[in-house]
Order: sequence, then structure tokens, then C-alpha cells
Amino acid sequence: MQRFLNNPDDIVDETVAGFVRAHRDLVRLSPDNARVVVSQSAPQQGRVGIVTGGGSGHEPAFIGYTGRNLVDAVAVGELFSSPTAKSFHDAICAVDGGAGVAVLYGNYAGDNMNVKMARKMAKKDGIDVDTVVANDDVCSAPLAEREKRRGVAGEIFMWKIGGAKAASGASLPEVIGAAQKAIDNCRSIGVGLGPCTLPQVGHPNFEIEPGKMELGIGHHGEPGMRVEDLRTANEVADEMVKIVLDDHDLPDGTEVAVLVSGLGATPVNELYVLYDRIEQQIEARGLKVYRPFVGNYFTSLEMVGATLTVMALDDELKALLDHDAASPGLTT
Amino acid sequence: MQRFLNNPDDIVDETVAGFVRAHRDLVRLSPDNARVVVSQSAPQQGRVGIVTGGGSGHEPAFIGYTGRNLVDAVAVGELFSSPTAKSFHDAICAVDGGAGVAVLYGNYAGDNMNVKMARKMAKKDGIDVDTVVANDDVCSAPLAEREKRRGVAGEIFMWKIGGAKAASGASLPEVIGAAQKAIDNCRSIGVGLGPCTLPQVGHPNFEIEPGKMELGIGHHGEPGMRVEDLRTANEVADEMVKIVLDDHDLPDGTEVAVLVSGLGATPVNELYVLYDRIEQQIEARGLKVYRPFVGNYFTSLEMVGATLTVMALDDELKALLDHDAASPGLTT
Repeated sequence: MQRFLNNPDDIVDETVAGFVRAHRDLVRLSPDNARVVVSQSAPQQGRVGIVTGGGSGHEPAFIGYTGRNLVDAVAVGELFSSPTAKSFHDAICAVDGGAGVAVLYGNYAGDNMNVKMARKMAKKDGIDVDTVVANDDVCSAPLAEREKRRGVAGEIFMWKIGGAKAASGASLPEVIGAAQKAIDNCRSIGVGLGPCTLPQVGHPNFEIEPGKMELGIGHHGEPGMRVEDLRTANEVADEMVKIVLDDHDLPDGTEVAVLVSGLGATPVNELYVLYDRIEQQIEARGLKVYRPFVGNYFTSLEMVGATLTVMALDDELKALLDHDAASPGLTT
Repeated sequence: MQRFLNNPDDIVDETVAGFVRAHRDLVRLSPDNARVVVSQSAPQQGRVGIVTGGGSGHEPAFIGYTGRNLVDAVAVGELFSSPTAKSFHDAICAVDGGAGVAVLYGNYAGDNMNVKMARKMAKKDGIDVDTVVANDDVCSAPLAEREKRRGVAGEIFMWKIGGAKAASGASLPEVIGAAQKAIDNCRSIGVGLGPCTLPQVGHPNFEIEPGKMELGIGHHGEPGMRVEDLRTANEVADEMVKIVLDDHDLPDGTEVAVLVSGLGATPVNELYVLYDRIEQQIEARGLKVYRPFVGNYFTSLEMVGATLTVMALDDELKALLDHDAASPGLTT
């Protein structure tokens, strides 16, 4: 295991400490909870607060999207594990400006449970909380059971849209409505070429054999829809676009935002090789790429692979996507 | 070799094509040369043009620093190989606004030769060209022979400072002076934990054994100052700071910009673990971190490892560092 590591038990605390040092212009640590990162611009009186949270190891997600007009506070979990209910609750309290708080998070059992508990705790404090649960991973359940799908990189669009809506002075139901529309309009797929290792475990908890790829892999190595021989970049791009757009039946001429993210150890240039083909394939299906994002936006430690997310846009989503925002992971 | 790849001979063209698609708001391809990326805001009449160039495989460097008030054009080489003299020349011509062109590049034999030729070609065109050669890698030669040192991630600061100076309306000698001061004030070190593979070769062209690290490794796997047992993240951070600051004898209280970059396959969270310690060590030596940068700024395909760059600042450099700029790799 070739990595920069002290005691594996300290990795999350050290990550958060280094992150807050590195981005102190935008973020700070909650004085009450070392597992809660708060935007320097939160809370704001009368504005809906935006909270998310999730396991560590996906950097820049989740902490990297804390900033101006984006996420106001993030509850930080152990590597690949949900934050505690207390951390979600502390994050909610840290950004409450009297107009309610939107918790926009991914569909994982631990997160669901802990957000539910945090919401109850916040209710006792008199804070109005509502939630949107991201479920954009097309390979994790059939479309008819979309509520079972996991949340992946589409969460970034959900946060961007929700944060922009809150910044516009919208009410909690309006913010929830916009974030829900964003994630409803998202579909994602991951392709894994190599596994990752949790430092406390010391060996990969799943395998991808040389010469193979796993189509539809989850952000923690959850099994995909199938393992098959690794094909050329263009063939992989074609397959990713096909799976996403077959699931996402969009009218001709629809404008879309496209996000291609590396999973951690894939060289950046390969993401551009994939994107070159992906955009051509999306446009060949009659859609129009309004805005592309290519980079390491949502990783899984040193997993080798990439994800594709497509969000269908309307005028409201376009304006919110382009609304001024600043965070370590995303700036407009 | 688990990667997204078509024909290895096409990887650079496909990377550039995907890059230009993904960042079309900021960059475009030269109509005359598919290996020259040009800022959407260049050329500007009466403003000094900023050109760089280098081998591919270091993304976001070099192309990713093309944009507004930063690099105006980049000559793109094959993986880990210099761009041609023609590409450097075409890049110079693409950004000439009548006030001369500053070519700010790294100290490698091929780049030196090709920039020299391009400069001669531009002279015949009546374009005034001057150069700064980055040599910030402390482990590649003794300080007494600094002109032999290689250029590494300090180039990013050199481009930022040079681009900002040009944006301020400075003359060519003034832009060269500021960029030269930036790189003179930079020291960098790399630590390698794992090698990378050129797709056309198919196997790593150097090795780092499990349990070992190479201190002072170059951006293409050039041998470092020593191979030793991999130590804890804090011990590695301490050693990086010590080597850089022993070389960089700075007065107490000096303000510095600090850049920690991953080399490609190191998880982002580990960069923050390193940074947390690095900042503490820098401040323990009586310096003050004015502005940190942590992320994958200058990579080497999927090499495992990280680099540290420290730039000493004065009032001019601080103002130029903070000057408005936008590029895929860096935004202020």
C-alpha cells in the first residue's frame, strides 16, 4: 500500500484539518464538531441553509463543495461510511438562518438513517428541515424502482442547483423543489478498471482483474451490472452514453449538463479522451451539451475508472447552474 | 495496463480535442496547428502574449493553464516529450499582439532546443520574444548549478505571475522580470511512491518497490536524490519541507505561496493529510503561508506521489498572484 499515511485511524481528521487550512478563504471547521465543515459565508439570516454529508475518501466530494452559494455545511463520515446523526444535526444547526435547512444527500442506508435522526433532533430545536435524496446511479436498480438507486456524482449538480436557488432568496419548499428537479433530471454510470484500498483494511475489498472492466460499478466498489473485457476508450464511452441515455429518455434537442469524473487514479488526460467521444455520442442522439465538466469531481480513493453524469436542463436549471458560486471543487 | 485508451498513437490528439470541447468557454484550438491551444481572450493588441509548452501527460499542465490573464497559448508535445519548434512558433504567432511574447517554460533539453528555434523563426516574423526557463526542482542539481535544475510545478506560479503582469499592461521586459522573479523565488521537490506507464511502451520505465519511496523524483521518473523506506505521511512532509527550505534560505517572517500537487494516482485526501503537516512545518520555520494550493495541479500520468513548491513573496508577487485569472486548472 503505497500511500501518504500516518495512523489510519487519524486519516479523516487529518484530511479535514488539511482541507480547512488549504481553503480557509472559503471554509472553516465548526467550533463544536471537528467533523463538520462550514462555509465562511454561512449562516445567513433569512436564507435557506444547504447541508450535505457522506463518507470520506471521495474528495473533493463532499467537503470540497462547501463555499459561496453552494453547500453551506458538510457532515464528514469515516472513509466510505456515513457521518453520525450528531454531525448531520450539528451541520444543520451551523447553517440555520431562520429560513429552514435543505439536506441534500445520497441514497445510502447509513446516511438515510442518520439524516432522519438529525431531522428529528433539529425539529426539537425548531429548525425546519427538508431533504432530497440523490438516486442518479442507473445501474444500481431498475428505473421502475428509482427510489432504490444510489446517489453518485449527480449530487454535485443537485448541490449546485440547490445552493443557487437558496442564494436567490427562495423558500425552503422552492429550494427542495429545484434540488429535487436537478436530481430527477440526472442519470449517472460508473466504470471501474481497478479497485481501491481502505487504509485500515490494507487490501482491496473487491477485485477487477487485468483486462477486465466493471460497468455500473458503485462509488465504494458496489457490484456493477456486468464485468466484461476492457474495450477501447471509444467503445467504453459509447457504452456509458448508451446506458445513461437509454434510461434517460429525453426529447430531441434537450440541452444537458455533462460531468465526467475520474475515480481517483485515472490520469486526467484519459478523462479528456473519454469526454471527446462522449460529447459526440450525446450530440449524435439529438441532445445539445450546454455545459461540460471534466475532472476529478467525485473520487473513490485510488480507484481506477470514471463516471458519466447527464443532467437534462430547462431554463431554470440553466440559470441556477450558471449562478455565481465558489468552492474548492467547483467555481462558476 | 488498465486505462481508457484507443490507439496509443492518438492519445495526445484525443486529449487535446476533448480538452478543447470541455473548456470551450476559455480555450480554442489554433486553426493552423492541432497541437496549439489558444486562450479565447488572445491575442490582445498591445498586450504581451504568454506562451508555454511541454510534453503531455501532466494534465492539467500545460494546457489547463490557458485562459484569461494566465497563459495565452500552449504548444503541446507527445507524452513526456517536447513540442516541436513549429508548435512553439505557431503558439507565439497565435498570441502576438504587437507588444512581444514571453515564452515561460521548463528546463528540459528538448524544450530548450525547440524554443530557441521558435524564437529565431519569430524574429524573422518581426515578433519580439524573450524567455524564462523554470528551474525550481531542488533535487535535480546543486544550488550552485541552478541553471541545470529542471522545471516542475513552480512553473504554475511563473505562469500566474507572468500572465498577471502582462494583463496589467506591462512591457515585455517587465513581464519577463516578474516571471523570472517568480521562478527564482520558487523551490520544489517531488516524492514518488509508484511509477507510471507510457501507453505506447506498456510497462513502467522506472520502478519504485513496495515499501520504498523516491525522494526528489522528477516529473518523468528522473532519479531522485535517494530511495529509502516509505515513512509516515508526517515524516515525508517534514523531509520535503526540510529539503526545500534548507535550499531556500528565507528571512524570518517571509510570506510564501505553497503548492502541493498530486502526481496522478494519489488520492486527494492524502494531499490534504500532507498539507496539514507541511503548513505547520513551514510556519515552525518562521515563515507565513500567504496562500496555499492543494490538488492535482501538475501530474505525471498515474504516478503515485506528490510535489511541494514554495514561492517566496513580496508585495508585487502577492498582488500578481491574487490578480483575476481563469483557466481550467486555476481560477482566482
